[in-house]
Order: sequence, then C-alpha cells, then structure tokens
Amino acid sequence: MSVNLDTPAVEAIVTSDVTVPAPLPVLGTDVAVPLADGTEIPYAALDYAASAPALRRVWDDVAAYAPYYGSVHRGAGHLSRLSTDLFEESRRTVAGFLGCREDDQVVFTRSTTDSLNLLATALPAGCEVFVFETEHHAALLPWGRTADVTVLDAPRTPVAAVAALEAALAARDETRHALVCVTGASNVTGELWPVPELAAAAHRHGARIVLDAAQLVPHLPVDVAALDVDWVAFSGHKLYAPFGAGVLAGRADWLRAAEPYLAGGGATRRVARDGDGGVTVDWNTDDSRHEAGSPNVIGAYAIASACRALTDAGFEHLAGREQVLLGRLTAALGELPRVRVLSLFGEGAHRVGVLSFVVDGYDSADFAAALSDRYGIGVRDGLFCAHPLVRLLTGADGGDGCGEGPLNAVRVSFGAGTPQEHVERFVRAVRELAA
Amino acid sequence: MSVNLDTPAVEAIVTSDVTVPAPLPVLGTDVAVPLADGTEIPYAALDYAASAPALRRVWDDVAAYAPYYGSVHRGAGHLSRLSTDLFEESRRTVAGFLGCREDDQVVFTRSTTDSLNLLATALPAGCEVFVFETEHHAALLPWGRTADVTVLDAPRTPVAAVAALEAALAARDETRHALVCVTGASNVTGELWPVPELAAAAHRHGARIVLDAAQLVPHLPVDVAALDVDWVAFSGHKLYAPFGAGVLAGRADWLRAAEPYLAGGGATRRVARDGDGGVTVDWNTDDSRHEAGSPNVIGAYAIASACRALTDAGFEHLAGREQVLLGRLTAALGELPRVRVLSLFGEGAHRVGVLSFVVDGYDSADFAAALSDRYGIGVRDGLFCAHPLVRLLTGADGGDGCGEGPLNAVRVSFGAGTPQEHVERFVRAVRELAA
Repeated sequence: MSVNLDTPAVEAIVTSDVTVPAPLPVLGTDVAVPLADGTEIPYAALDYAASAPALRRVWDDVAAYAPYYGSVHRGAGHLSRLSTDLFEESRRTVAGFLGCREDDQVVFTRSTTDSLNLLATALPAGCEVFVFETEHHAALLPWGRTADVTVLDAPRTPVAAVAALEAALAARDETRHALVCVTGASNVTGELWPVPELAAAAHRHGARIVLDAAQLVPHLPVDVAALDVDWVAFSGHKLYAPFGAGVLAGRADWLRAAEPYLAGGGATRRVARDGDGGVTVDWNTDDSRHEAGSPNVIGAYAIASACRALTDAGFEHLAGREQVLLGRLTAALGELPRVRVLSLFGEGAHRVGVLSFVVDGYDSADFAAALSDRYGIGVRDGLFCAHPLVRLLTGADGGDGCGEGPLNAVRVSFGAGTPQEHVERFVRAVRELAA
Repeated sequence: MSVNLDTPAVEAIVTSDVTVPAPLPVLGTDVAVPLADGTEIPYAALDYAASAPALRRVWDDVAAYAPYYGSVHRGAGHLSRLSTDLFEESRRTVAGFLGCREDDQVVFTRSTTDSLNLLATALPAGCEVFVFETEHHAALLPWGRTADVTVLDAPRTPVAAVAALEAALAARDETRHALVCVTGASNVTGELWPVPELAAAAHRHGARIVLDAAQLVPHLPVDVAALDVDWVAFSGHKLYAPFGAGVLAGRADWLRAAEPYLAGGGATRRVARDGDGGVTVDWNTDDSRHEAGSPNVIGAYAIASACRALTDAGFEHLAGREQVLLGRLTAALGELPRVRVLSLFGEGAHRVGVLSFVVDGYDSADFAAALSDRYGIGVRDGLFCAHPLVRLLTGADGGDGCGEGPLNAVRVSFGAGTPQEHVERFVRAVRELAA
C-alpha cells in the first residue's frame, strides 16, 4: 500500500532510538523573528507543505550559475550554449530522480498546478477523468474544462479507495480514453495513498493515471516506472527549490498529439503566412512543444540541484529521519485530549511529515497566530486548497453540508531541513496552548 | 511616433560627445570564456533581446530575501506574512513603474508568452483580434484559439502601420469586441512602433490594445496611462530579473469576467460538492484569479527590484546612454558594404539597442559562431521567433514565398548593463570578419 516506506533502510531508522541526525542545511534557519513579548527567536519553518526553504546546496548551485546565465535554445554565445546544456541536463537529472521510463518526457512547468492544467489541455477528445473529492484543488479542478469528470466520494481506507476506483472504472465505457488523478500524499493529512494499487486498477480498465506528487516527492523516493503511473507532477518550491519551476513527467504520446500548451516562440518549427491571409504553424513535437517562451533555466536547474542533493544525502535515510520526527510528534499530540489530528484513513495509516489538527475550543487561525506570536513557529491554518476534504474531516460538513465542526484546521509540516528543535518547540507550544 | 525617445533628457545625452557613462553593474561581466585559439576572454553578452544578465542589485536583493522566503497568501508564520507583503508590494512597484491606472490589475505570469496566452483566454466571446504579421510568435499566435484573427501585412512606415490598422478596424463590425496586439519595439529590428497612434486608432474604433513590451520595457520608460494602451506584457528575464516571472498589467474588467487562467488553489474562494455529484467553485475576482498555484515570489520580487534599480539610476539617462552606443554601432556597420542592417521602417526609424543584419557571403549561423569562437561575443542567429518578418526582411520570401535572400540573420542586442568595450569589440569583430 505504501510508497517505498516499508523498505528495510527506513524501518531501521524509524525503529531505532538513536538521536535524530542533523538535517540538510537550508536557508533561513538563523533568521530571527519578533515575538509578541518583544523578544526574538530563530524562526521555525513548519509549513513545508506550502513552501519549503531552499536547500543551502540549491542556493549555492544557483549562485554559482547565475553569472553564467544565458538564453536557452536561443543563442550562439558560449553562455547561451552552456545554459542550454544545463537546462537539458537538468531534464535528464529529473528523469533519473523520478525513475522515468526511457521514452518519457519531462516538461518544465511553473508548478504542480501548472503541470496538471497542462495535462488537462492534452487529454484526447472525449476523455473521462476520475478523481476523489479529497484532492487538492489543483488536482480536483482542472479536468472539467476538457473532460467529463467523475468525482468519487472520500474513501475511509486505502482498500476502499481502490475498490471505489475499480467500481467506477468498471462502469465506464472502455472505448473512451480515461485518466485517473490521485495524490501520492495528502496535503492535508499527509497520508499516503495506495498508488501502485490505484495504478494497477486504472490500467486494468484501460485508463491512465497521473500522480500528484507535490507532497510526495519532497518526502519519499518516487519511482515512476515501479509505481507504474503514467505521469507525475510536482513543484520546485516544495522540493527546496523555490525558483518558479515545476515538472510534468511521463508518457509522451498524449503530449505530442496535443495542441501546444502555450502558443509562442520556442514551440514552433516554422511559421508562415498562408494563402488565406492567416498563418500556418508547424509545432515542435519534442519536450519544447509545451515550453513556449524562454525556459526558466534557473528554476529547472534548482530542481535538478535539489534532486541531486536528496539523492547524495541518501533519500531513504532522510525519509527515515523524517519518520522519527513524525513519530515523536504524533505520540506527543496523541497525549493531548483537546487536540484532534485529522485522518482520512484512520489508525495505522502511513503519512509523510504533514499533519493537520484542530484544537477543541480554539479557532485555528488564532491557534496558528499564537504559534507565530509566542513561539516563532510558522504553520498554516485554513482549508489548504482542499475544501471538501477539510470540511469532511473537521466535521464542518456532516455529510449533509451542515455539520457543526470547526471551519478550518492547523497544519504542521516539515522535511529534510527541519532540525529536531523545531519539532520539539512545536510540541511544547501545542502542549502549553492546549493545556 | 516614438515612445518617450524624443524627451529633452535623452536628446541631450545622445547628441553629446562625452564618454559613455558606466553601465549598471550586472552579473557575468567577469566571466571568462574560451576562444578557438585556446586563450580566454571576458564574455561579451550581446544577446539581451533573448535574455539579459541579472542586475547585480537584483541578485543582491534576491540573495538578501532568500533566507526569508516563505509561502505567499498561505501561511500564518512571520516569514509567510513577510513574503506575502513583499509579493503584494512588488505588484504595486510594477504598477508604479509602468504608470498603470488606479484600477488596473497587475498579474504575475511566467513570461510575455504566458501573459499574452492568458489574455487570449480572457477575451470576451466573439472577439476579433488584429495583429501585424511582423510580430513575435508570442504575440502572433495565441489569438487564433479564442478569437477571429486578422493578420495585417507588414507596413513599411509607422504611418502606414496606423493607416493599415485604421482601414482594417473601419471595416469591422463594431458590435463585436476587438483587440489589437502590437509590439512596442521589434525583437528583430529594434524599431519602435507608433504605439500612441495605434492605441488612438484602436480606441476610435471601439477596439482595445495590448502592448507587447518585452523589448520595450528594458530599454525605455513605458507609461501605460500616457500611451493609453489597455494592457502591457513583458518578461522578467529580459528586464535583468531572470527568475521565471513575467507581467500582464492593465484593464481589470475582461480579466475579472474571464475563466481563471489555471484551475487550482489560490484562485478559489470556495469549493464544495454539488447536488449532482460534481463540484461547484467560487473563484476569486482580484489579482489572484489568474495566479492559481503558489506565486513565484522570488520572480516577482526580482522584477520589482529591477524596476527600482532602473528608476533609481535614471531610466532616461540609461536610455540615452544606450542610444549613444547604438549610434556608434549603426554608424560603424553603415561603413561596411557587406553588412546589411534589417529595417522595416527604413531611414530615420527610431530603435532600441536591438539590431539584426546579414553579411553578404556569410551564413548567419557561421557568422554568429565566429563571433563566439574568435571574440567571445554572444549574439543570436536565426529567425528570432518572428519567421514572417525575418523572411520578409532578408528577402528569403520575396513576397511570393520564394525569394533568394538568406534564410536567417544575426542579431546583436544590448542594454543598461553593456560596457562600451563590448560594443567596440563587436564593431571590430564585424569589421574583421566582413573585411
């Protein structure tokens, strides 16, 4: 059911009682922020699920490259050729990091949202899309513009998720194209979805599957070929590379057949006036087809740098480290009767370092503000761009849309750059605030 | 006819014979590149029209901010609030830099290409678009997906451009919405288009106008209100801020009424299941409507930093300095009989620091390679994503599509960061190669 979380390396670290190893160096850990009492404290960034700090190594790589910056695919000068090589090498690095198949395409986009919108425009005519209501809006909303969408109710176990998808796909007309869109790890609960099983179900019924890996790629090794997903989408800014780039990687055929995502230079092979007074265009069919405009080479290079940094550090080691912190966090929160951790899949569900909760008697916005003002801790409160899921889990919608639970929640999230002290400070803060 | 080029301040600098003042500091001026003879030389970046180097000040601002990076519009922590403030302040800085009207919107996109594609999706139903065949593909191609497009033949004077647009607009059905898309300065010839006159013509006939300012904003002050254009689009990477962001600024009404550009989080006010099993969405109507996904705060802040740097340095002073370099360049090239500078508007046309040419007896790719290999100069050769225009000007298309001119050209371009020595080296190189 899980995604590479049951490997021996991860298990070994999680179950050990050794001191948590040092985090990967990130920017911002020495930034002091003001507290309400007039003192200052080093900022504890615990909102990785929104945007993670840049890895020091990513920053250093970008800084070393910046003087060599030049246009990609567009110039005859030395720095332009160097930048083009760097951009294309970044594509290969990302493909390797994701375990892509040989003929997969890697398209650099601006974000996960952008990647999924791109794929939505590339769906074949008459395509059906199947998506759970529990998805982030970026994965829930793009499809209605170009496909017939079936929104599936929230499943309460991973097994139920697979069964619900099976049932929906079994009822479909298999002469039509179909796509399943599913998250790898929920941006609300951090819980892992049964990706290989869902992929197998999709393929059994002639459908394809795209993995929203925005919250998965920063936390666990992803292997596109092993998971057997058709596409994967993620964002640089959640992968310690906040320079405006994202990725859509996977099957080339639909992408090649689709109209270019943006109309413009870089995607065109030849443009000429036609006999009717208009213009005719031959579009490229390679990766550049959907990358019109000058590529964001710094953004792409930063993502590749992050991929290398995580790989070099031993990604399974980092994942194990995160699980230790997560274990201590969940154990501590479990002892606080006023704190209710939100969970779709219930006891025993695997999750990454992303966790949302409500505190009895506390408005979540007030709680998050108190964490900031009194402890220098940055988290997020709200509905996390996943309104149906959060309302379901908090009880704001009691199934009939008029439940009495709180309207929003608090989310704490962390990753490879998080020092043990940040989690400890957070636990202490919640203990004191929810006392 | 020109865009702020006839101001007394600019004229004074252009007509003086003083030494050219120092450029604004940019990254990369100390980068040594290898020559074919085995020696090295500091790189001369003369491909600003593709991508300009980062201003040192832009880099310093980004570096100073990077440790404070946090999610925009999405977090309760100190750095998230600081990043949100910085992002929204960047929006106001850009609006001020462009001379926007009070109720204009500034949308951060990824590039000019993206900005114009966004506007294309925001056109009202039944809209007509009028565009000259001389435009960059990013301005020529997006409209056919959502509008009826009239492609106008290349005019050979600015006056003819206005007359051609007048004639086309006069023939249209004024009960339909209409948009004119025009460049401020050609990315091929550098020549200025008669923007205020074209805007007046558009408005006389009830049409709107969007200015492709990708090649204008880095070279001359642009005042949206004074030019009376409805929208302006440009890219950060040509404005010394290569961090993956661009801008679409202008009238809010069409943008507010349009479907959000991308479907996803950040653009949604409320998402809920509806009675039919699907989802209903209330979209935001402010700037964020078309900015779904986490904003590229570093990219936006870098653009704002560049706006401040150009303003603080005295933009008209910089423009005047560029005109001096341009004057010396064109004078030198004019003395070389084998060099033919491409021009649409002919003698007396104003241009920015962008100039394309062909060399009799030389393939342009070979010429550009020689500039790189023997002089360390980076330029661009090709068709510059403006195929119809370049073919027309080189003579590759003799009107009937089968002329005998060369297939491509060489483009040299520069700006506020260009030292006098780069232009001098370029002139010497062309003299030697074209001897």
